Amino acid sequence: MTKKINAAILIIGNEILSGRTQDTNTSTLSLWLNSIGVRVQEVRIIPDIEETIVSSVNSLRKIYDYVFTTGGIGPTHDDITAQSIAKAFNLEYEIHKEGYKILEKYYKPGEFNEGRQKMIWMPKNAKLLLNPTSGAPGFSVENVFCLPGVPSILKSMLGGLKNDIVGGEPILSHTISLKTVESEIANSLTKIQDNNNDVEIGSYPFFQAGKLGVSIVIRSEDQNKINTCSSQILDFVKHKKIEIVNRD
Amino acid sequence: MTKKINAAILIIGNEILSGRTQDTNTSTLSLWLNSIGVRVQEVRIIPDIEETIVSSVNSLRKIYDYVFTTGGIGPTHDDITAQSIAKAFNLEYEIHKEGYKILEKYYKPGEFNEGRQKMIWMPKNAKLLLNPTSGAPGFSVENVFCLPGVPSILKSMLGGLKNDIVGGEPILSHTISLKTVESEIANSLTKIQDNNNDVEIGSYPFFQAGKLGVSIVIRSEDQNKINTCSSQILDFVKHKKIEIVNRD
Repeated sequence: MTKKINAAILIIGNEILSGRTQDTNTSTLSLWLNSIGVRVQEVRIIPDIEETIVSSVNSLRKIYDYVFTTGGIGPTHDDITAQSIAKAFNLEYEIHKEGYKILEKYYKPGEFNEGRQKMIWMPKNAKLLLNPTSGAPGFSVENVFCLPGVPSILKSMLGGLKNDIVGGEPILSHTISLKTVESEIANSLTKIQDNNNDVEIGSYPFFQAGKLGVSIVIRSEDQNKINTCSSQILDFVKHKKIEIVNRD
Repeated sequence: MTKKINAAILIIGNEILSGRTQDTNTSTLSLWLNSIGVRVQEVRIIPDIEETIVSSVNSLRKIYDYVFTTGGIGPTHDDITAQSIAKAFNLEYEIHKEGYKILEKYYKPGEFNEGRQKMIWMPKNAKLLLNPTSGAPGFSVENVFCLPGVPSILKSMLGGLKNDIVGGEPILSHTISLKTVESEIANSLTKIQDNNNDVEIGSYPFFQAGKLGVSIVIRSEDQNKINTCSSQILDFVKHKKIEIVNRD
């Protein structure tokens, strides 16, 4: 059996906790990590408070293979991720020479002001994560990867991250959507889950465009196990004469 | 000074961690809680694993005034929130008599099957949270409130929850959106934050409809403090000749 690679995501930002901003980075990161064989096992959303960032990072980085933080690496007073990570790892917080050179080239002469320079203050010897959208890099220290909060910038940085992360087998999934309600299939699904212990079966009701249904999601690294489980589900679906809305 | 009332949200569900489903309940709950004077200080998203639910609930309920869980209270095998909460509080997990009567009336004769009956297995003496959308109630035990994961059902239950929660002063906010970049205003904002310690000032870059800008969000329970802070911001905006895109 291959080793499972696990990760946690730490979303840093009062704007998510207040409900003002809808987080979408969790979904972006999770889907991408799944595709390279990394399972996200926990997400925490925390405020812009140094003590909280330090203790969360120090607790998560010991439990999981990788920790991804988002947010708090911009130029303003509420961007305190880099200084907090330095504190978490007990490292100096200083100007990153390589980062300085990147931003010096990126901006026009005279534009690389004090505010912008804050973005390359990092933990000593941090590894840069290149940002093809807006110049200012993210960084990593050991197994902690610090990414920006702006979704479009975060997305553009994932490709460059791939070489830094050792994943396992990609996590595959198959979804069977049925025109039924959960209580009609609950017993049959329980039996199938009991018979297929190492496959993850989820049941999710949906109400879309006036249609009521249930999506059954089967997840595993092993396509054969998904297929076995899937055909067992299709057996009871046929037997109960339930309409299949979609499969993907 | 009035006591600040804090809360945590615990999102239970593999479908959020896998990235398949975009969580929106955090934003819904946070905005509603802010309006009744409760600040969300932490959100955790965790998988459908009993041990993880038990330990998360037991850790969060001691730190925060309120804990809100979403998800895992349906009829299928992956719905294990109620049994986990019973274990967290060391309570019996049993059929809730009042809940049984509600669902017995809700369903047509013969429709209240075993799958549906699972939805009223709850921790002993749990307080029901009424569900005007689909019958099956949520429940609370002490300061832990268990709500469904389906966003439309969760939303419909908030009105009925209000009497169970003692909040503080509503948290007010004012947003000033500017046509600028963060690094141009970072120093001025830092000074204003330093002079207004008990007001929360956030700075959020936006890229919308081709426009590049920054939204400054000022938050406090005290409208006067927001006004003071706001006028200090407008002073430097005027001085720097920055265009105001919007205020709300």
